[in-house]
Amino acid sequence: MTLTDVARRAGVSVATASKALNNRSEVAEETRSRVRLAAAELSFPPGRETIFGTSRVIGLLTDEPGGRLSIPVLLGVEESLGDTETSVVLCDARGDPGRRRHHIRTLLDRRVEGFIVLGEDNDVRPSLTRDIPVPVVYVYGESDDLADLSVLADDAEGARLAAEHLLSLPRRRVGHITGPKSSRAARDRAAALRRVLDGRGLVPAGGEPLYGEWSRRWGRHAARDLLAADPGVDAIFCGNDQIADGVCEALAGLGRAVPGDVAVVGYDNWRTLAADCRPPLTTVDEELGRMGAIAMECLSAALDGRPASGVIRHPGRLVVRESTGPAAT
Amino acid sequence: MTLTDVARRAGVSVATASKALNNRSEVAEETRSRVRLAAAELSFPPGRETIFGTSRVIGLLTDEPGGRLSIPVLLGVEESLGDTETSVVLCDARGDPGRRRHHIRTLLDRRVEGFIVLGEDNDVRPSLTRDIPVPVVYVYGESDDLADLSVLADDAEGARLAAEHLLSLPRRRVGHITGPKSSRAARDRAAALRRVLDGRGLVPAGGEPLYGEWSRRWGRHAARDLLAADPGVDAIFCGNDQIADGVCEALAGLGRAVPGDVAVVGYDNWRTLAADCRPPLTTVDEELGRMGAIAMECLSAALDGRPASGVIRHPGRLVVRESTGPAAT
Repeated sequence: MTLTDVARRAGVSVATASKALNNRSEVAEETRSRVRLAAAELSFPPGRETIFGTSRVIGLLTDEPGGRLSIPVLLGVEESLGDTETSVVLCDARGDPGRRRHHIRTLLDRRVEGFIVLGEDNDVRPSLTRDIPVPVVYVYGESDDLADLSVLADDAEGARLAAEHLLSLPRRRVGHITGPKSSRAARDRAAALRRVLDGRGLVPAGGEPLYGEWSRRWGRHAARDLLAADPGVDAIFCGNDQIADGVCEALAGLGRAVPGDVAVVGYDNWRTLAADCRPPLTTVDEELGRMGAIAMECLSAALDGRPASGVIRHPGRLVVRESTGPAAT
Repeated sequence: MTLTDVARRAGVSVATASKALNNRSEVAEETRSRVRLAAAELSFPPGRETIFGTSRVIGLLTDEPGGRLSIPVLLGVEESLGDTETSVVLCDARGDPGRRRHHIRTLLDRRVEGFIVLGEDNDVRPSLTRDIPVPVVYVYGESDDLADLSVLADDAEGARLAAEHLLSLPRRRVGHITGPKSSRAARDRAAALRRVLDGRGLVPAGGEPLYGEWSRRWGRHAARDLLAADPGVDAIFCGNDQIADGVCEALAGLGRAVPGDVAVVGYDNWRTLAADCRPPLTTVDEELGRMGAIAMECLSAALDGRPASGVIRHPGRLVVRESTGPAAT
C-alpha cells in the first residue's frame, strides 16, 4: 500500500495527498478530509507525523457505573480543549483490573497520547502510572503514589461553605444526615461541619452525624429519627441531594416547613434533581466539569514536557436556592 | 524504528517480540503485554496484523449531554462483548456536526473498526454513514436512510404494556401526563395508550393527554390540573419517571393514596429515581443496555461481512412496584 494508492482513491495528485497527510495548510479542509478517509479505508500505514497531523486522542478511564461523575468530567475535559484538534474517548473498566489493563493496552496500541483516570469516589486508589508509558492525571480519586497528580473535590471546603451558610441565616441547631461511614467524602464533610460548629461553640443537633446510605429513602427515614431525637433542629446539612430530597419529603409529611422551620442543604447539585426538588435545593456543586478541565490542563502541560505531582483540591461552590431561602410563611 | 528496537526495550528476543506482536499463543500474556507496551512507547509502526492482533475498537458516538442514555448503552455494548478483545470508546459530539466530523475522522485515523451512533431521543436523525467507511449501527434515534440499521425503543409497545397493566388492576379512568408534544416518544406513547383505551371502549380521564415537560415540577402541576378536571381519575400513566415522581408528590399533598386511590406508572426505570420514589414506581424499562447489546451484535455481524438494514424495535418490559401494587389502606 503506497501513497499513490491513497492519492488514486481520493482522486488527487500524489503531491496533494502527501500535503494533506502532512496537514499542510495549503490543502483545502475538504480535500484533506477526503485524503485522510482514503488513507483510513486503505489502512495506509499511519506514522504520527503524516496522517495524524496535530490531532491528539486522550483516554478517560472510568470505573463508575452510573455516569453521574464521568459524563460531567468528560464534558469539562472537552470544554477546556476548545477548538484544538484533540478528541477525548471514554472507556469504562467497571472496576475490573483485567478490563482496565485491556483498555489501556488497546488505547496505547491506537496511540492514545495521555490518560485521565477517574475514580468512583473521593478515596485513595492504587496508581496505574507504572503500566502507562504516557502522561496520566487522576481526577476524583487520589492516586496512592505521591509522584502522580490528582485533582480532587475539596470535601472539607464544600461542607464548610454549607455550614457557614446555614449559620449565617442564622440557624443554630444543625443536624447532619449523610452516606456510609466507609466513604471518605462522608467522613470529611462531617468533620468539616463539626469544626465549624465547634468554632462557634455550637453542638450538632441530634448528636453524632447520622451515617446511612446515599438514598432518598435514607433521607426520609433519618429525618424522622433526627426530629424525634431533637425536635428543635432548625437546619439539616445532607451528604448528597438524594438524601436532602428525602429529608424535604419527610419534613413535609411531619408538617415542618422548609426553609421556614428547617433549612436544608444538599450536596452535588445534581442537575436532574436539585433544582426540581420541592423546594428547590440549596446545595454544594463540586464543579465536576471544572475538575475535568483542570485535569486536562495538567495533562496538556505534561504532554508538553511539564508534568506536575501532588494533589489539587478544587473547592466547588454553594448554589443557593429556596430550601434555605427567605422563609415561606 | 525496527522490531529489534522493540525487542531490546522489552528485554526479549526478536523472535519472541515478533510472536508477541502477532498475538501467537505460545507467548505468555505478561510477555505479550510488555512487548506491546514497548512497541507503543516506540511508536513502532503498527500494521493491523502485527500489534493489533485480534483486538478491535468500536466508537460509540453520542450527542446526549446527560449520560442518562449513553452510559447504560455503553455498559450494554460491553456486556455483549464478554471476554472478546474489543474495547468500546465513547465520544461526545454535543450535537455539533463539526465536532462529530472531527471525532469520526480522529477515530478513523486511529483505526476504529466500527461505530455505534446514539441519538438523544427516539426521533429520526440524518444518516452519517456516507462519511464513515466502516460499519455503522444507529441506536435510540432512527437513521433517515433506510439502508442503515437502527435499533429503537418500541414506545408504542412500552405504553401498551403500561396501559394493559393499569386496566388489569382493574382501573378504568386513566389519565396521561407526559413530555412535550414535539417529542416523538411522547406522541407515540400517548397514541398507544389511546388505542388500548379505545379498544376497551374507555375514554381518557381528563380528555386529551397533558403535554408539558419531562420534569417533576410539571408532574406536580399537571396532576393537580388533572384531578381538578376529572376528580374520579383512578390511574395516571406518566411519560417518564420524573413526571411520575411529581405526580405522586402532588397526590400525597391532595390526600390521595397511591395506589389505593390512584395508581401511577412511570417510564424509563431510571435507577436512581424509580425505586427510591415514594411509593416505589411501577415503570416501563426500555432496557437500554439490551438495546446497546443488540446494536453491538448487529455491528459485529456487519464487521464479519453480514450487514443488515432497517429498524429493530425493542419492546422493553414493565417493572411492577408499589405505585400500582396491592392498595395500601
